[in-house]
Parts: sequence; structure tokens; C-alpha cells
Amino acid sequence: MTPGAYESGLDRCKANYLPLTPLGFLDRAALVHPDRIAVVHGELQRTWRETRERCYRLASALCEKGLGAGDTVSILSPNTPAMLEAHFGVPLSGAVLNAVNYRLDAQGVAFILRHGECKLLLVDREFAALADAALALLEHRPMVIDINDHLAPLCANVGDIDYETFIRSGSPDFEGVWPDDEWQPIALNYTSGTTGDPKGVVASHRGTYLMSLLQMTNWPLTRAPRYLWTLPMFHANGWCFTWAITAAAGTHVCLRKVCAETVFDAIDNQGIDHFCAAPIVMAMIANAEDRPALKTPVRVLTAGSPPPASVLNAVVSRGFDVDHVYGITEVSGTPISCVWQDGWDELTPEEQGAKRVRQGARAAAFESLMVADTDTMQPIAKEGQTTGELLLRGNTVMMGYLKNDSATRKAFEGGWFHTGDVAVVHPDGYVQITDRCKDVIISGGENISSVEIEEALHCHPAVLYAAVVAQPDDKWGEVPCAFVELKTGVEPPTEAEIMMFCQARLARFKCPRRVVFTELPKTATGKIQKFLLREQAGSRDAIVRLASNG
Amino acid sequence: MTPGAYESGLDRCKANYLPLTPLGFLDRAALVHPDRIAVVHGELQRTWRETRERCYRLASALCEKGLGAGDTVSILSPNTPAMLEAHFGVPLSGAVLNAVNYRLDAQGVAFILRHGECKLLLVDREFAALADAALALLEHRPMVIDINDHLAPLCANVGDIDYETFIRSGSPDFEGVWPDDEWQPIALNYTSGTTGDPKGVVASHRGTYLMSLLQMTNWPLTRAPRYLWTLPMFHANGWCFTWAITAAAGTHVCLRKVCAETVFDAIDNQGIDHFCAAPIVMAMIANAEDRPALKTPVRVLTAGSPPPASVLNAVVSRGFDVDHVYGITEVSGTPISCVWQDGWDELTPEEQGAKRVRQGARAAAFESLMVADTDTMQPIAKEGQTTGELLLRGNTVMMGYLKNDSATRKAFEGGWFHTGDVAVVHPDGYVQITDRCKDVIISGGENISSVEIEEALHCHPAVLYAAVVAQPDDKWGEVPCAFVELKTGVEPPTEAEIMMFCQARLARFKCPRRVVFTELPKTATGKIQKFLLREQAGSRDAIVRLASNG
Repeated sequence: MTPGAYESGLDRCKANYLPLTPLGFLDRAALVHPDRIAVVHGELQRTWRETRERCYRLASALCEKGLGAGDTVSILSPNTPAMLEAHFGVPLSGAVLNAVNYRLDAQGVAFILRHGECKLLLVDREFAALADAALALLEHRPMVIDINDHLAPLCANVGDIDYETFIRSGSPDFEGVWPDDEWQPIALNYTSGTTGDPKGVVASHRGTYLMSLLQMTNWPLTRAPRYLWTLPMFHANGWCFTWAITAAAGTHVCLRKVCAETVFDAIDNQGIDHFCAAPIVMAMIANAEDRPALKTPVRVLTAGSPPPASVLNAVVSRGFDVDHVYGITEVSGTPISCVWQDGWDELTPEEQGAKRVRQGARAAAFESLMVADTDTMQPIAKEGQTTGELLLRGNTVMMGYLKNDSATRKAFEGGWFHTGDVAVVHPDGYVQITDRCKDVIISGGENISSVEIEEALHCHPAVLYAAVVAQPDDKWGEVPCAFVELKTGVEPPTEAEIMMFCQARLARFKCPRRVVFTELPKTATGKIQKFLLREQAGSRDAIVRLASNG
Repeated sequence: MTPGAYESGLDRCKANYLPLTPLGFLDRAALVHPDRIAVVHGELQRTWRETRERCYRLASALCEKGLGAGDTVSILSPNTPAMLEAHFGVPLSGAVLNAVNYRLDAQGVAFILRHGECKLLLVDREFAALADAALALLEHRPMVIDINDHLAPLCANVGDIDYETFIRSGSPDFEGVWPDDEWQPIALNYTSGTTGDPKGVVASHRGTYLMSLLQMTNWPLTRAPRYLWTLPMFHANGWCFTWAITAAAGTHVCLRKVCAETVFDAIDNQGIDHFCAAPIVMAMIANAEDRPALKTPVRVLTAGSPPPASVLNAVVSRGFDVDHVYGITEVSGTPISCVWQDGWDELTPEEQGAKRVRQGARAAAFESLMVADTDTMQPIAKEGQTTGELLLRGNTVMMGYLKNDSATRKAFEGGWFHTGDVAVVHPDGYVQITDRCKDVIISGGENISSVEIEEALHCHPAVLYAAVVAQPDDKWGEVPCAFVELKTGVEPPTEAEIMMFCQARLARFKCPRRVVFTELPKTATGKIQKFLLREQAGSRDAIVRLASNG
């Protein structure tokens, strides 16, 4: 070969190399489908042309206020049009979007605003009091904008200006501040701190663009999806569906409050065909009364703490097309999914449930995963028994934790992102999470999976939710302690009955030594807050930091 | 903000930044669907596990022969399993894949092998004679491997070793040579030279990865598509569907010879649900006799020279779900498509045809397009009348032309890729190609679109194909000359009748001054070879270089 023939005259230039960013999806939706409904919120509907204009006005108004590259703009809001607009308008000003979990207490919110160095805060009026209390804890008060969403409860405002007034001050002809490198931050999402301070996950334009395409290809999204916002947008930017649904020029159907009734109503009245559901939403659907099976299938992605097979099966039997996926904030979404195999349709419902409860395999658009012994960094055997830590490597993995080099280094040790989740790998290569690293119960030297015990408990007809944590024990080190929330309208079982039920299903050493009947504490995203239960059980490592364990 | 908080501790590392490449799609398909049929070729079927193994064996064997980064491996083959395997096996050796148009003559093939500095040539035995003649013209003979495809006609071999023997020598446990930078070449595809030497378009791992995801999201591909290979894989790597169908873990159904019969048979017997079709294939389908309408819709992408509305409508009326797209080798596929609008279902078939014949708008995963006056580089008015050149800017645009800096510079002038296609932009933003730059007829100072005249001719019930080129004229400079291929079994019209037919539909100065009834010369991809017609019409700029005008 002519020396270096492929190495000269083939350089990156403006025509062939542009920073990957999800922001361009908005222009395209507005160009191709200007009159299609982009957002539905109660009786409010806005087209893609209108939505684009509002996003650019927001970006322009932010720039007018001096915000731009390297600045953090925070938002406290449920799933509303303004929350969606922030996903485009804030990064189009050059600033980084920080969507904050509104279930946190004032200390939790204040920690995030302080650590993220929030310059401007957008607040849905429902959370004005929370914002007010958090702002009172800060040394430097950012500028505050009130979002007076028409479906929000009437509350006193806390801000300096109203959102609608603010964006009217911006220009619809603003061109936007586009990233000049795809390795620039677009979003800052705080994980909960169960074992330390919350960590600020920084996502890049490149990573979120690629996760958007991953979501589109892996589900895959159909044309013009009608997507219901049950998953909080503050949760890793709604796993990037804020951007992916826009790329598909679909319709975002907002929802301030998620319950079985509002979900079923949206399906009936808004033609919903896709939504994402945390385990708690799945349980609501599974247990909803007086609802006939769906006429046309609705596609559901579910992730979060591993949902019990009984709940998955119940939702499937109502006519939902359920995909079980695995997501984590540090990867901007769900890189793993339990891909349904050609032959599984022939299995019994129980066998199908056992398949569906597994997290699965990497998406085509995600580069690599390994379940490994982290001492040796060698993959574990694929026999469904040996456990290891789930490690990920791919282009949607975060840039790192903001101002936290030691946590970033630790998370990326050995060139892999450490999820902190314990998993087995089945012979077919599918991964199954058995626990969070910190949730493993070590009893007499044996590792016990809390998830396995929870699975057994969920088979009991009276159990709505179950969570198992470690309880200190002088003889065994730790023993399992079960917390159980019962269904309404059923005969409540006794502690002894539940123990007997477990003994019929589990090895003796895995059976709970104590059963507590209680309403389980849950986060905004429907995860059970095990750290609170651990405290109640007296675990040695119970640390209470935040009201949320998202 | 803490100075540079977002600028330190958030660096690229092995865990979060990997070269984008379509090669990983193969491992994933084999991991998740090892037993699903990957390739069908006549009675031959191979699973994804088998296909992956064969690709890695090929890569290993190539490496053993000393091939690797910076080397070109060429292949002359129709759409067979070996051709598909080359799309993974060759780049997995580190080498660049050069799939050669087998409709070229020996001089054409020799030019490519010489210019691309082919180190190793894979030859399907049907093209052994062509390869032999081309190799005889070279100063340095590359290593040659014979692909003895079981469906190929029996021909003498030309190579040094048989393909099956060769890949058996490779190791199935080979790990592959992966790109260490996504801006490295994966493929070299020669465009035809109608006005100069053929140019070698170099595509990158990044660009082909992103085009694969573009194809998956823009169509969008369903799960497990069964894709029929009517589009030659040598044509811009089958618009990246070689990789995209693999990413979807679909089934590649091969086809050595494309005609209406084999297409309809594959639909009936192989459960085909997706394929791509050049205009000539569309015409075959439109005119196929004795075929009932489809029972379930089959999705078709069509691109190439603008297909006439009458052909599009005829194919739609047979039950095909047709998407009209715009592709070009320099962009690795089809960045533009005529997205069907919500309201178009209510239009008459004629109105629908007028919509569908437009090339359309950019895909969400393609960054930018502009139709501009290239003197001023200003966008033209969006009124469907003014013409300009279609310019593209996006991450799937080629790295450049191999060893042709002047052509690369010219193609990227002003920071845009110049397609050489003339287009108008309609008020809704949809682009419509009116001509290749070189096909515009300039008559008395007026620009005449050859496509517009061809559209009119295709409305005549006896016309199968029509092509219009410029004919020199002493008074007007140029005048339109029409070449017409008639349908079989119809009453042949006279030249005067065709002229009258045009006069009823076109402005007088646009009507052809001469009509020639003839079989039209076509390329392997079904494009009409206008340069041959121009020669026949006596155009001043008729240049004959290659037997193909792909």
C-alpha cells in the first residue's frame, strides 16, 4: 500500500464530523411534524412547532440572564411540559440540566443545589415550600423561576419570576448554543447516598445521544409512539426517553401523579402505546381492580429493583407487552434487557415468569458487560449459581461524578464501571441480578440473596410488597429479616404462617427469622428504601442520609 | 461555579469511551440469538453462532496471511453468505473491505483493484473470468480466493485457494482486531466515474455504526426482521443494512439474481418483511403478472434515481408499504426519507403519488441538510420552484476519497458535502431532487429538469422506462431527447404520439424534440446509464469511462 494512503486526506471536517447530541432531535421533529401533538398535559396540547419555539425561548432567556457553558440549571418538577422543555431549553443555552428528585427533604435538595452549584432553579409550584426550605439552607441563593403549571395545586410562589413570563422574554429565533465537542456535559443527575453523600452523575451529549438511539432500537420504538410519562423525568432524564421520544417525533403524555387509575385512563383516552414502569407502578397495575384486559397491547419497559415474577406475570396477563430491562443512572438508561426468545412463547406462565424476571443481555448499541470476581477481574462461570459484580463498559456510561475524583476512580477501577449489583450469569448468557452488593446477607459465611427470599414471599397470595434485609445476629453474623406489606381485603397471615410458607420454598438458612408487617417506605421511583428497613432491623451498616434511596 | 468543575475528573476512559463500530453487532447477535437463523441462501441456513464463527475464522485467516490495518481486501460477489461474512470478517482482521461492482468490465475492476491497492481478492466463481481478465491488467497480482458458492454456475476457478478451505485455516477463537479509533476506515466503495476516474469513498467505523442505527430508527426496523437482499451489498455496503440487520439480530435472506419471480417467491416462502429496492426492482414488481396482492404488508425502502410516481403507486397498490428514501454512497446510506404525514392517507392515489415521489426530510439521526445556491452558499427559497444543490452535513458522511485530495476538497467545499444533485424545497421542508447537476438540460437559457419530463413520459400506459438527456441544438444550445423502453404486449405508440402526449402535460420548451424507442442500458443497481444515452444523443459532454454509471 502507498504508505499511509488511509492516513492522509481523510480528516474530520465540518461536513463529516459533528458533535453527537440529542438536541438536534427537536429541530427535526418540528421540521417534519410541525403540527403533530408533541405534548399532552390534561386538556393542554402543544404541537412540535410550539414546543420547539418554547424550548428556544427558554434557552434564549437563560442566555440573556448570563447562563451558559459550565453553569448548572436545576429543576424541581413532576412530569410536566415545562420539565420536558427544560431537557432541550437548558442545554440549548449551553448550561447543564440538573433535574432534582422532589421526594427529597430540604436538606437533600439543598445538598444537591450546593454541590451542583446551581445558578438558576426552576420550581413547579407544588414544590415551592420544599424549594423555599432548601434555599434557606444555602449560602448563595440562585435565581428562582416559578412554574405555575395549570394542573399543580395552588401554592404560594417562591421565585423571582413566573416561567411563562420568563420564556416570553426569550427569542424564538435564537439559534441555540450547541456543544463544540460531544464530550461535554448535558445533564447532572444525583444518585442517592445510602453509604455516603449523594453523587452527581455527569452525562455527556455523546452518551445521551447514543442512549436515545439505544432505547429506540432496543425496544424498538414504533413510528410516532404515544408515550405516557409514568417514569420520573428526574430519574436519569427518564432513561433518555425525553430525547428518544422526541427523536421518534412521538407524543409525550405527561402525568403529575401516577396511580393505576391515571395510567388506565391515559391508555383508554390518549391512545398510549408505550410507557416505562418502576416496580411499584407494575404492582399497581397488577393489583388494579375493575379493569378489563387491554384491547390492543401496550408496551411496557420495567426496571428498578428486580420485580417479582408474580407481578410481571399478572401485568402480562392483563394484555401488556412487558420488557424487563436493567438500568442505572450512571449509564443514562437501560443497557441490558431480557430479550424474549423465539421459543419462550411455548413455555408455561411459571416458566415464562422465571425467564422474564432475569435482567438479560446487552443491547446491540451497548458495547460490553461482564459479571466478574472483582478481586481477580475474571468473569464468573455461566452456570446461574456463582455470583459476581455486574461491570459495564460502553459509550453511554457517565463522564464521571462531579467534583468527586475518588468516587469516579473507584467506579471505573480496572477500566469497567462497577454497578454495585451482584449477579449470576445463566448458561444462555443472560444476567440475573441477585442483589445490590450492599444488600447481600452474609449468614454463617453463606451469601444469601435478599431478592431470592423476596421472590418466595411474593408468591404468597396476601403479600403486596416484600423486602428482606440483614439483621445482626450473635451466632450467624447476619440473618434475614422480612418486611411485608399486605394486600387490602385479604385475611392477614401470621408471622408463623409466612415463615412456614418460606420454609416450604427455601433452604432453611435462607428463611427469614423475623417478619414485620408494615407499609414499606418507597422512593419517588418506586424503589423500596431498604436503608430505612435496615435501620429498623438494626443492621450495622444502616446509614440514613436522605429521605430517598433512588 | 468552581472554576472548571465540569472540566476536570470527567475524562474519557476505557469504561466510558469506546470506538463506535458496527462490528460488535455480530457478537451480540450470536450471544443473544445463537440458534436463530442468520443467513438463508437457497436451502442453506446458518445460525448466528455459525455465522459469527465463520466471520472470526475469516478474520483470523486474513491475519495469518499478514493482512491488517491499512490493507485493502476486495470482493467480487453477488449477495451470498460469503459476501455478508466479508462485512465482518474483513474489518475484524483490521483490513478495509472493498466490495466491487461486478457489472463493471475488466478495465473497471482493474482500475479499482489498482487504485485501492488490493492485497487480497475474494471472487465468487461466477465472476472468475472477469477477475481473471482484470488481474491480467495489474502489475502486482494480489492473493486470490475462490468462493465456490453452491448456487453459483459452474465456472473455472481463478484463485489460489478455496474460500471454505481458507476460513477453515482460521481460528474460531480469534478475538478480532478492533479499531482503536472510531475515525478509522472500515470500507472503501467506488463510485462510478461519469465525468472522471471512479472515486474511492472511504467510510469510517463511526460513520457506518451511526448509519446502521439511522437505518434501524428511521425505517424503523422491527424485531427480528426477515430481510431480502435485493439491493447489492457492493452498493455502499447495502446502505449499511449488512450491519443494521445484524444489529437487529434479523435474518439475511440472500439472492443471487433479482427478478419479480424470485422476490415474490421469497416473500411467500421465506416470510420476508423488509427489503430495499432500486427503481428497476420497483418496476419489476409493478409490472409482475399473475401475482395476487400481498396478504401481509412487506416494507420496502426505495431509492436511486427518482422513481416515477406511477411505479411507486403500482407497488403500493399491490400491498407493499413503500418508503421513498434518498441515498448516496458518500453518506453510507440513506439520510433522507419521505416521511409519511398523518393526513396523507386521506389523499387520492394521484396526490399520494405526488407526495411519495419527493425525497423528503432528514432522519433524526442525521445532522443537517441544505439546498443552496452554491455560488452564495445561501439556502434557496422553500417554494418548490427554485433549484439549488443538495448539501449534506452529518456524522455518516464519508472520511473522504482515497488518494484524491482535490476531489475530497471539492466535495467538502464550504464545510458541506456536495451531492451533485439538484433539488427544490417544498413549503413543508421536503426536498425533491429534480436532476443530477450534470443531467440538467439548459435550453435557451432555461433549466429543464430531465426528471420532470421522465415523470410525464411514465404516465403513458405503454412506457416501461423513460430517460431524457440533453441533445445539442444550434439554436437553443440544448434540447431534450427522450429514450423510451416500451412494455411488452402493448400497441407501440409512434414518436409523434409520445410528443403529443408530452405537450398535453408539459410547457412547450420542455417537450422532447426527439423520441428514441430502445431498451435502456442499466447498471447493476438499476440506474439508467444516461452517459450512454448522452453519447447516442450527441451531447457535448458525453464521456464514456466505465460500463457502469452506478
